[in-house]
Amino acid sequence: MARPRTALLDVERIVDEALRISDATGDFTVTELASKLGVHPSSLYHHVSGRDQVVDLMRARIGRTIDNSAFGTVPWDEAMRRLAWSYRSAFARHPGSIRLLATALVRDKESLMEYDRFANGLHTAGFSWPEVLPIIIAFDNFVLGSALDMASGGNNLYTPDPQTHPALSAAVGAPENPANPTDVAFETGLTAILTGLRHKLDNR
Amino acid sequence: MARPRTALLDVERIVDEALRISDATGDFTVTELASKLGVHPSSLYHHVSGRDQVVDLMRARIGRTIDNSAFGTVPWDEAMRRLAWSYRSAFARHPGSIRLLATALVRDKESLMEYDRFANGLHTAGFSWPEVLPIIIAFDNFVLGSALDMASGGNNLYTPDPQTHPALSAAVGAPENPANPTDVAFETGLTAILTGLRHKLDNR
Repeated sequence: MARPRTALLDVERIVDEALRISDATGDFTVTELASKLGVHPSSLYHHVSGRDQVVDLMRARIGRTIDNSAFGTVPWDEAMRRLAWSYRSAFARHPGSIRLLATALVRDKESLMEYDRFANGLHTAGFSWPEVLPIIIAFDNFVLGSALDMASGGNNLYTPDPQTHPALSAAVGAPENPANPTDVAFETGLTAILTGLRHKLDNR
Repeated sequence: MARPRTALLDVERIVDEALRISDATGDFTVTELASKLGVHPSSLYHHVSGRDQVVDLMRARIGRTIDNSAFGTVPWDEAMRRLAWSYRSAFARHPGSIRLLATALVRDKESLMEYDRFANGLHTAGFSWPEVLPIIIAFDNFVLGSALDMASGGNNLYTPDPQTHPALSAAVGAPENPANPTDVAFETGLTAILTGLRHKLDNR
């Protein structure tokens, strides 16, 4: 009957709480995590090796909802398109954790398997090995920046004055614009990137 | 002689401190800001109208180092390229503030003038008004995601195992890769986006 809260501790609860803290504050420490879980920090070390492993588990958790299954079944650019949409949605649910995960080493085996599949898909499509890593990084950066935009509610954030900023006003006020431009912007950027990459392959 | 610290308060100091707090914690409150500046919150209101104006001033401050002067002097895609590099560098110095600024309204007159110049440059290049806003948002998202990557030190973050992740290992281990892939990745993504946008214009 002793220490029931410790007895209930498991990896899932630790990851839940680490994501909650990071979403709220942008980061977490083992001390904060233990405190929020109502346990002594040493109890955490029965379940995880330390902060780095918790970060790995956070990435793996978010990655669970990312669909990367299309590589090898549809053309590479269609596979990247499907990956991009589910990747953005997954991270848009954790905007406070984006900076932490975007700047930490990728070490968890689930994410590494997915990146391996992505790298293989790009190489199979015709990109040379030295071209693959920059494409993956650029794609990650576009998707994570877009996830921040999506998490902001995706509303237009520009507030031009028609007299002083006529061009921006015309752009923001175009009657064809959707109320929430985040998806159209994502589609526009994604299509541009994929078209540019295809052009690179086609012009060898 | 009374309250010397209040007497020394000015807008520049307020913005410096707001950036410092946001870079460290991802956000700031007027209470925190006043506390760090050693003044009562009411003193801040002699200089700024409130938190929103401080956010505007933070954006304007970062924007001071962004070079957007090329629109109208060189082809639109070359102007976007120059804008992108200086925009990424400016925000990479403030990674903790990226989320805050990426999700807040753009209201400061300096930034609005620059976005107006950007919008005008795109429309002059041939993009329709409804196309301009999504291009600007997608470009912002790519640049801000890339600024996070640059701020992480720009080192390769993927740690594949050659046996388990052969494709990712080949990509990461390509002898041609630079030690710091962030700039090559940025150039790759930027070129793809600009090529894709040019393709859109050329195929009308």
